[in-house]
Amino acid sequence: MSPKRRLARFTESMQNSFDGALITPSSNLFYLTGMKPGNVMERLFLAVVYPQKAPSLIAPKLFEDEIHRAKIDFGDIYLWEDTDDPYVHLRRILKDIEASQKNLLIEDSMASDILMNIREQIDKYEWSSLNSQTSRLRKIKSEEEMELMKKAAEIADKTYREILKEDLRGMSEKELASLIDYIIKKNGAKETSFETIVASGPNSANPHHTPSDRKIQEKDMVIMDFGARYEGYCSDITRTAAIGDIHEIEEKVYGIVKEAQSQARKIAINGIEARKIDKEAREIMKKNGYGENFTHRVGHGLGIDPHEEPYLTENNEGKIKKGMTFTIEPGIYLKDRFGVRIEDDMWMDEEKSITLTEAERDLKRI
Amino acid sequence: MSPKRRLARFTESMQNSFDGALITPSSNLFYLTGMKPGNVMERLFLAVVYPQKAPSLIAPKLFEDEIHRAKIDFGDIYLWEDTDDPYVHLRRILKDIEASQKNLLIEDSMASDILMNIREQIDKYEWSSLNSQTSRLRKIKSEEEMELMKKAAEIADKTYREILKEDLRGMSEKELASLIDYIIKKNGAKETSFETIVASGPNSANPHHTPSDRKIQEKDMVIMDFGARYEGYCSDITRTAAIGDIHEIEEKVYGIVKEAQSQARKIAINGIEARKIDKEAREIMKKNGYGENFTHRVGHGLGIDPHEEPYLTENNEGKIKKGMTFTIEPGIYLKDRFGVRIEDDMWMDEEKSITLTEAERDLKRI
Repeated sequence: MSPKRRLARFTESMQNSFDGALITPSSNLFYLTGMKPGNVMERLFLAVVYPQKAPSLIAPKLFEDEIHRAKIDFGDIYLWEDTDDPYVHLRRILKDIEASQKNLLIEDSMASDILMNIREQIDKYEWSSLNSQTSRLRKIKSEEEMELMKKAAEIADKTYREILKEDLRGMSEKELASLIDYIIKKNGAKETSFETIVASGPNSANPHHTPSDRKIQEKDMVIMDFGARYEGYCSDITRTAAIGDIHEIEEKVYGIVKEAQSQARKIAINGIEARKIDKEAREIMKKNGYGENFTHRVGHGLGIDPHEEPYLTENNEGKIKKGMTFTIEPGIYLKDRFGVRIEDDMWMDEEKSITLTEAERDLKRI
Repeated sequence: MSPKRRLARFTESMQNSFDGALITPSSNLFYLTGMKPGNVMERLFLAVVYPQKAPSLIAPKLFEDEIHRAKIDFGDIYLWEDTDDPYVHLRRILKDIEASQKNLLIEDSMASDILMNIREQIDKYEWSSLNSQTSRLRKIKSEEEMELMKKAAEIADKTYREILKEDLRGMSEKELASLIDYIIKKNGAKETSFETIVASGPNSANPHHTPSDRKIQEKDMVIMDFGARYEGYCSDITRTAAIGDIHEIEEKVYGIVKEAQSQARKIAINGIEARKIDKEAREIMKKNGYGENFTHRVGHGLGIDPHEEPYLTENNEGKIKKGMTFTIEPGIYLKDRFGVRIEDDMWMDEEKSITLTEAERDLKRI
């Protein structure tokens, strides 16, 4: 589905409910317009989408080329230079909107300083989360989107296989993270999906560890959590490798996580409640005495954003339906000792889910 | 100056004016607390700073380790798990604040969905930009900050010198950008300052080009704009190299940009108005008939953010004072043909400014 078609479906959904949508560079802007301007930083770049007419755009003149790459037609375009005040245009647009509903959609990630600059104009409106409207559309992926996600998953698989050929001993976590990033890009992705996590030895017990100067050494467990962004779409994979001879306890814990992950993938059939997938993995951890050591949700939706709907938490009763893409990533973390996590990307087909990431899940000793 | 001392100065500046400051992960959070959590994404991580008592923190339990690395002491800490609603805490905090002024500082980059979630509570307040308060403190760098910025500049210089040894012919812009990123990290920076720009041949006529699959070839001008982030502080350098034999026009334009950049650096003495530095470069472009082709401001402040105060625009009358760090980066862009930009990082000393980036500015033929 082209951005043009997506935008049409979106504006249709706005009818009778919203007067306009303010959209800054984000996954929603990319989804609805095809635009993905880089390094915008403090410069105002904002699309205003209306229910009944072509969207307006306010953008720095410096980004004119990006505008020509847009996959939709804009109505009014306001280009501003470094000496101008771009808010003049935004305030006028807001004044001009025929506010029958007095309800604006606002891009969830939009920087708050924009709202501060137009507070007087928007104080009269109800604000609603743009994601709450777009996620209903975005969480069901089209065939074309699936092809891009498959490709992103392939790049992640290939990257892991290349990393396994390296001798990781003596390499710092930071060095390994930047090597992973480099290989992801060499394999054809323009960007990583998020900041690559490398956590070794005791650091692997921290699920959100930031790569440090710690050098990888014999007997370490090493968690690598990374993803490739291909033509805007994310993959997100985690593998845990062992450096040389590890102890029995690491092997045992690895086996439990692997079983939990495999079972959770297996029960993920069309129509299942998200929480049931979480429960499946959690019960296996509990049965083996590690319930307390699985400290996060079992997974999350994946697409243009590395985290998006549906969230696979203990209490989400929403159903996983055909076309949804998500991760399954149980883990066990033993404080100050080590951790294990295995994560794959999934796509829900007509009957059951298909695993997109295929890199080896058996315990690898490097 | 330690984050503790910075926080004390900041809370002092809040007295008599503000009831609280809401700070999400950002350069301000790093400046005031030393914390820099990675991959937070949709999870609420927020510090509330008060004028009279120790700050509160709301953070995902997953990021507990990051909290222990904070360089300040928090009062109340609310850790939340994936099944909790973290806004319960934030709403209560806002209710508890003794709102004598009814004025809140809000982190400029804070995602708007946070404001949407607490709108009822904060509608009664005036909102003020946190940057407007912190930038007065942040734009004057301490000796320790200067050392980190020098180191970040050194890494950028070293990276450029290593790139000059490569044969760039046949390499795509994307490949060269990821090679630059890799070398930056190999040279000791954890991150780049921003998305690396590589613009070759006709693409170099676009000042904010996104690296593409275009392969670098004979007679190209290649603009490389990149930076290293070292211990939180940014460098930002641009060099334009020639591939083999270029024409006279490219050489001529290069010479004008080099002269403009050099003159602008020379007149940057303590106390000069920002706009005068811009004017110096702009006049040289005009005199040579390229006034229309210099399409952006001459520079910007640099520090924890890659763009921050002071901005060196045509109309900024603010003075550049001792301790400020900023870039000088004039450029000439000839549509569909080529562009040239040269950028260095500067630090204002007692009398005149010191150039931090030192990589060769003479035209390099690769």
